[in-house]
Amino acid sequence: MLNTIIILIPLAGVLALLFTYIRAKWVSNQEVGTEKMERISQNIAKGAMAFLKAEYKVLSIFVIIVAILLGLQGASAENSSILVSFSFIVGALCSGLAGFIGMRVATKANVRTTNAARTSLGQGLNVAFNGGSVMGLGVVGLGVLGLGLLFLLYTKMFGTEINNVQQVLTVITSFSFGASSIALFARVGGGIYTKAADVGADLVGKVEAGIPEDHPLNPATIADNVGDNVGDVAGMGADLFESYVGSIIGTMVLGAAFMGLGGFELTNEFGGLNAVLLPLVLAAVGIVTSIIGTFFVKVKEGGNAQRALNTGEFVSAFIMLAASYLIINWMLPGSWEFGGITYTAMGVFWATIFGLAAGLLIGLITEHYTGTDTKPVWSIVKQSVTGAATNIIAGVGVGMISTAIPIVIIAVAILGAYHFAGLYGIAIAAVGMLSNTGIQLAVDAYGPISDNAGGIAEMSELPPEVRERTDKLDAVGNTTAAIGKGFAIGSAALTALALFAAYITAYNTTNPESIITAIDITAPSVMAALFVGAMLPYLFSALSMQAVGRAAMSMIEEVRRQFRDIPELTKALDAMRRNEGKLLADWSDDDRVLFDAADGKAEYEKCVAISTQASIREMIAPGLLAVIVPVLFGFLGGPLMLGGLLAGVTASGVLLALFQSNAGGAWDNAKKMIEEGVDIDGKSYGKGSEAHKAAVVGDTVGDPFKDTSGPSLNILIKLMAVVALVIATMI
Amino acid sequence: MLNTIIILIPLAGVLALLFTYIRAKWVSNQEVGTEKMERISQNIAKGAMAFLKAEYKVLSIFVIIVAILLGLQGASAENSSILVSFSFIVGALCSGLAGFIGMRVATKANVRTTNAARTSLGQGLNVAFNGGSVMGLGVVGLGVLGLGLLFLLYTKMFGTEINNVQQVLTVITSFSFGASSIALFARVGGGIYTKAADVGADLVGKVEAGIPEDHPLNPATIADNVGDNVGDVAGMGADLFESYVGSIIGTMVLGAAFMGLGGFELTNEFGGLNAVLLPLVLAAVGIVTSIIGTFFVKVKEGGNAQRALNTGEFVSAFIMLAASYLIINWMLPGSWEFGGITYTAMGVFWATIFGLAAGLLIGLITEHYTGTDTKPVWSIVKQSVTGAATNIIAGVGVGMISTAIPIVIIAVAILGAYHFAGLYGIAIAAVGMLSNTGIQLAVDAYGPISDNAGGIAEMSELPPEVRERTDKLDAVGNTTAAIGKGFAIGSAALTALALFAAYITAYNTTNPESIITAIDITAPSVMAALFVGAMLPYLFSALSMQAVGRAAMSMIEEVRRQFRDIPELTKALDAMRRNEGKLLADWSDDDRVLFDAADGKAEYEKCVAISTQASIREMIAPGLLAVIVPVLFGFLGGPLMLGGLLAGVTASGVLLALFQSNAGGAWDNAKKMIEEGVDIDGKSYGKGSEAHKAAVVGDTVGDPFKDTSGPSLNILIKLMAVVALVIATMI
Repeated sequence: MLNTIIILIPLAGVLALLFTYIRAKWVSNQEVGTEKMERISQNIAKGAMAFLKAEYKVLSIFVIIVAILLGLQGASAENSSILVSFSFIVGALCSGLAGFIGMRVATKANVRTTNAARTSLGQGLNVAFNGGSVMGLGVVGLGVLGLGLLFLLYTKMFGTEINNVQQVLTVITSFSFGASSIALFARVGGGIYTKAADVGADLVGKVEAGIPEDHPLNPATIADNVGDNVGDVAGMGADLFESYVGSIIGTMVLGAAFMGLGGFELTNEFGGLNAVLLPLVLAAVGIVTSIIGTFFVKVKEGGNAQRALNTGEFVSAFIMLAASYLIINWMLPGSWEFGGITYTAMGVFWATIFGLAAGLLIGLITEHYTGTDTKPVWSIVKQSVTGAATNIIAGVGVGMISTAIPIVIIAVAILGAYHFAGLYGIAIAAVGMLSNTGIQLAVDAYGPISDNAGGIAEMSELPPEVRERTDKLDAVGNTTAAIGKGFAIGSAALTALALFAAYITAYNTTNPESIITAIDITAPSVMAALFVGAMLPYLFSALSMQAVGRAAMSMIEEVRRQFRDIPELTKALDAMRRNEGKLLADWSDDDRVLFDAADGKAEYEKCVAISTQASIREMIAPGLLAVIVPVLFGFLGGPLMLGGLLAGVTASGVLLALFQSNAGGAWDNAKKMIEEGVDIDGKSYGKGSEAHKAAVVGDTVGDPFKDTSGPSLNILIKLMAVVALVIATMI
Repeated sequence: MLNTIIILIPLAGVLALLFTYIRAKWVSNQEVGTEKMERISQNIAKGAMAFLKAEYKVLSIFVIIVAILLGLQGASAENSSILVSFSFIVGALCSGLAGFIGMRVATKANVRTTNAARTSLGQGLNVAFNGGSVMGLGVVGLGVLGLGLLFLLYTKMFGTEINNVQQVLTVITSFSFGASSIALFARVGGGIYTKAADVGADLVGKVEAGIPEDHPLNPATIADNVGDNVGDVAGMGADLFESYVGSIIGTMVLGAAFMGLGGFELTNEFGGLNAVLLPLVLAAVGIVTSIIGTFFVKVKEGGNAQRALNTGEFVSAFIMLAASYLIINWMLPGSWEFGGITYTAMGVFWATIFGLAAGLLIGLITEHYTGTDTKPVWSIVKQSVTGAATNIIAGVGVGMISTAIPIVIIAVAILGAYHFAGLYGIAIAAVGMLSNTGIQLAVDAYGPISDNAGGIAEMSELPPEVRERTDKLDAVGNTTAAIGKGFAIGSAALTALALFAAYITAYNTTNPESIITAIDITAPSVMAALFVGAMLPYLFSALSMQAVGRAAMSMIEEVRRQFRDIPELTKALDAMRRNEGKLLADWSDDDRVLFDAADGKAEYEKCVAISTQASIREMIAPGLLAVIVPVLFGFLGGPLMLGGLLAGVTASGVLLALFQSNAGGAWDNAKKMIEEGVDIDGKSYGKGSEAHKAAVVGDTVGDPFKDTSGPSLNILIKLMAVVALVIATMI
């Protein structure tokens, strides 16, 4: 049975990739639309690939250096150090590949969604969701396949006895390290890219030149649309890939502690590996339930698109819940003793329930604080009437207060999961949250694809009803996306704690003569490290925010230069100004000639190159910070100070991430509400009103909060914990 | 010797109060100036007293309830519980009295500074500084007198043997609790008051009606000037009173641990109370050095005012340093053993040096990130050119990155002080930082007095050179004020840690059967509490920020109502608009009549009442939060979870406080730089430019950051630690 399972796990990964391949093929086979649409979409695809290529070039240097260091560091201690390097490289490759696949299909799905939306909303949904499901299943497929294959390989090499498995886990953890470091760079680089392009396009195009969003005359629009793919698709994919892999590995390490040491009998059908294999099996089954779920996302003409997405998610979640119950009761003994505590299979199941419930609740709370027409967002709308300053203060207030309930939920989840199944329970709760990542991520990636589809509709000058349909598609995924965010943050917190616990376990296994019994915050060294740890998310956010500022400045200068130096653009802009408010059909013939002459003259590729170079350059400092600081603390300060650092960075990071993401989301929707028109104290406010201008300021401030620094913090806390886990056996 | 010292300590407090009395008398005897100046200043003084009266009414209810609860709670356990209540009441009274004295003199000194500035800069400095020194010495005088008298009384009652002193300290800690809770309410209420009035005056007066700042036609100007006293004088005084008292008590509790238990010989001249008395003696000597320092703050006509303030501070600091060296070596044995560690007198001295150096360095870093013409503030100035959004993003970035070095400094100070003198070292480092509070606070309070003097000059329509002089006076104290901020934040962190350590010590003393050996963050319950603790500063900031928003709204409506409903005001405003840009002398006779007719018609007292009621109402929720949460955690979660909560709130609170204070300060000076005129990329920007408008938005956002929520967090973290210490013997 043990061997069968070890072989079946990677096969589930293969199944996911097969599904991915079929869906990608299907998307490719859809019609692209007009010649102009094709040209634009190719520009976006080319830009996205150019970014990935440049990014992966830099990252491959990083990966090679770290792989060599890992090899050298371990070399003196154990001869398995080459495997540590190997796992690291495989992890990095899988993460990179997941981003590549997702982005490649997303940049195909966007234009095909636009084209499908020319026919109907339902068609558009199908294309966008299928595009998203490639990303979703690609991520979980590569995660399970990579981890599964390495586990198969290493158990073949070392064996499956207690000591062997400990060795296997020591070398396999750097898979997670590889995945995390790529994820961090992808998130930070992507976040900087998308916001630099966005701010550049908006400030010069919309504000200075007065042309609409996504207008083909704006040289930065292509970069802006590339950014959505780079940041929201590839970045988010890498983020969830990391959580997914991190939570599985953390659980495996904690599960191994049960083995032999008073835990399971080694003679049972899982060879005592029950708790080690459980997270892998749950993930593998999650692939199947996610695939089943995707078949329920179907909408007929006139049907409810939101309900279609919800059905898919809930069917999948429900099957997964039932499957978890069966699997856990099948794989784990009814009860067992370890370290003086009695564990039960049902307890482990309850722990996953705590994880699931926490993710769901945080999502709903997120929706409350950031959704359209909710009380907190209304408070921002109202304060927009008195100007930008009150809008900002209100948004900051909403963002800060929105941290309260999610943190209490996380605290309860920690206590509950621990109560039912100890530290293992906390880890398995994270796995429970993430077992449905496949379909969850499909819905998440569906959002930016629809967003991009809208941009293409605008740039290709398609009739307004197409844009309306893509806007509806975009809006549909909001609640599900909010729940996805809840899972991302909740799972990041729990995964970080699981990795933290795994770090202690791993350290104690390698250092039986000086085991850590407690990391005592009354010890000043730990407290000092806690302070520094709590500071890192601030430093990290500041670095990425300042990077966005610098990159946006380069973009602004380039767009201004083009408007000035390309005569066709200058003339077309003048013509636009002369005909402000008129339809193109009502323009004078001369002006229309000038306008047409500018078509395709904007040098999109230069803006793409600027965003690419700037984001690659700027991602390095914050990225290295995350890797180097825990290494320094570990080797210079020792394992206890490293523990204090992790506790500080986790608590402070989760809070700052919640604050930034939610404030950004709330500002965004406050602006959207005003754009749709609101009545306050008997007066109406809409697009162009002073309240709207104030809300635009809030939205612009919120952009780097919610798309760059906020989500990067999720990765930061996991990455630091993974680094600690990897170096645990060396310090 | 022991008895002599115990009697001498309160006498030092009496000395300070005597000095305070003389200086207050001197200030009162200065000329007030014109009849109009007198009327305005009386309005401000009346408003300030109205606020204090309303505030103290509410607070006395709070104090009585808590005193009864403290009495009841302890009643079952010990018969000294009445003393716990008594100390609490005395602490609250002293804190309230300190605020009262400071404010009373500040509201006299402001108009007299204006009047003195009519003669010369030097005269103005003398009056303003003398006013500030009343606040400074009043705070330390009441602190030392209150604590000293209680210590004298309780040692007379219980005696000075080991067990007796433990009892003395148990009942004396609630003195700090009383001081802290008044401080929190004063800071929060004052912060809300000042910002509500400020925002209301600015938004309706300056922006909507277009009249200059501090103009007598604006009904909210008096409230605005009252706010400066309420927030910056009384609020800051209460804040430092709390740090001062908290650090002394924390050190006393830790010092008592040395007694008998292998520490000092009980037969020496201090009766074994060496380490307990040391912080009190240092504080008492600090009073003397502060008084000496004030005599060096003298400036002749044409002299350098900044140098005068610096001289006073440095002379005082230098004497204090030398005195500390002598006192520590006199009072402590050359070396002694405790708990397996060797302590030395010189080690304790080095710990105070770490404290002093940390405070100084944090101040200089603060100055770097928030001062005029520094690189970080320039970055905000530059980003103002592209609008409010980029200004805000840049300011948030500066605020976040400004946390990095101060946190590292605090971490190094913790490690250094601990290395040289253990936990006692951390506590004595805080005392070292604060021993000069007398003169430090004098310089701090000097700032708002000069600020107020400027407002009075404007409202009384004095010649512009008077306002220029008061502006110079205001600017002079900036560097010293920044250093003061550094001390406030650094000492808050160290004091909180000292109280935290004292809490553990106190708990262990009362519960010898279940002592706390470690508060382990790998324990999920502690980690969950850490998360919740880290969240509280966010919740607290959000509550106070939203309170400012609501209070400002009420103020805005009242000012609008007066402009609409008081015919003289409406007509005068019309006249102003007709004569925009002209000097009053060039107006038509009719318009001048209309303008003069409006004099005194604005109903200032209604605005004062609104700010007062709103701030009192709004301070209750955040204030209670700070007191109730640690009590809940202590009684329901137990001492370890309470410890986790404290660690979380301290780390997260210090960071959020640094971020908010520094971002606010940087935005403020970026605006001031643009107002003075700046050149960016060859273009000039000044008052009224688009860049200036963007910078005004940043400054308005920064106001509640730096004056309400940021500084309140300093108190929050200390108050929670004090509450823990007070309930340590009950849980």
